[in-house]
Amino acid sequence: MLRFAVVGHLARTSGDINLSDLPGGAGRMDVLCRCVNSAFFLSHEFRRDVECYLILCGDPDPEKTVRFSGSKVRYLSPDERSAGSLIKKALALPAGSAWRESTPGVEVRRGGLDLLLGEYPFAVLDETGIDLRKAGKLPEGYLLSDHQNFTPGEEALLAGREKYSAGPLSLHADHTITLVLNEIDRRRAGWTS
Amino acid sequence: MLRFAVVGHLARTSGDINLSDLPGGAGRMDVLCRCVNSAFFLSHEFRRDVECYLILCGDPDPEKTVRFSGSKVRYLSPDERSAGSLIKKALALPAGSAWRESTPGVEVRRGGLDLLLGEYPFAVLDETGIDLRKAGKLPEGYLLSDHQNFTPGEEALLAGREKYSAGPLSLHADHTITLVLNEIDRRRAGWTS
Repeated sequence: MLRFAVVGHLARTSGDINLSDLPGGAGRMDVLCRCVNSAFFLSHEFRRDVECYLILCGDPDPEKTVRFSGSKVRYLSPDERSAGSLIKKALALPAGSAWRESTPGVEVRRGGLDLLLGEYPFAVLDETGIDLRKAGKLPEGYLLSDHQNFTPGEEALLAGREKYSAGPLSLHADHTITLVLNEIDRRRAGWTS
Repeated sequence: MLRFAVVGHLARTSGDINLSDLPGGAGRMDVLCRCVNSAFFLSHEFRRDVECYLILCGDPDPEKTVRFSGSKVRYLSPDERSAGSLIKKALALPAGSAWRESTPGVEVRRGGLDLLLGEYPFAVLDETGIDLRKAGKLPEGYLLSDHQNFTPGEEALLAGREKYSAGPLSLHADHTITLVLNEIDRRRAGWTS
């Protein structure tokens, strides 16, 4: 199983988000919606072996995590509004400490990065890391940040973790996910670089 | 100058598109909006040396081409709706044979792939092509298709052109643009693979 987790520092944590204003009122939820797209969509296929965790840290009720599970997800189209609609439905549920499913393959729970890091291994995607193309065995979990850098508190949680870089420039999170999956696709297919 | 051109086989050619229904009524305009995002956006920077051509072949008034010029474009945010809004403004102008600017850095004209191929060199991005990573000097122009394959008529126009592949799987056009730009970024920065 491949796992991507993205921290949405301002991402709204209630079900009142406006799907026509994902960047504004929903706290740059557009970034997270594009990450869902990159994590799952192939041309006319879907990556069933991926999970995508959205860690929502914005008002009014932080923190919550929304999980998309590729093996089970339904009703997801590639456009931002489609992912946004499924996130909105998840946020409309009362969140507890256990995962609760809102639509097939989409679940929500209370809790954020700290909780998730205790459950699964995640390497950090960061332009100061090891070049993905030159890495030996690649990890199964990758953590990214939205348009903001990790906070000092998050950095403290991440101390000592492996860091990987997808390229020489600082990229959007969704573009970085595309690059990680391409490197994995190539290795699985035996394409040597 | 790097150039990306994307054929939108169903993409609507009038200014009445609904920004809340880019995949449906606007003829998978969401695909083209994501291509604009991938062509230009870096984390907190913008690729000024890129042009992105959207070739719109859908009803009611085909064909039209919308050009985004990175050196001049303004009012563009990363979300699909933002690119969609600028496309809508371009399509609201009467299109003639010359480029006409709708907002800074966004222009429209009548005409499609045939016209564009006579003006600039474009290689084709296709999973049957040469691996981008193994190619010698990379081209400056890349042509992609939306969620549909090139038509037989388009294939005839493209006969004999160089083909490049970004990976072993068939990918969305916007993901492919991200992979091309990453390879170019790496070469410019002297990152050897």
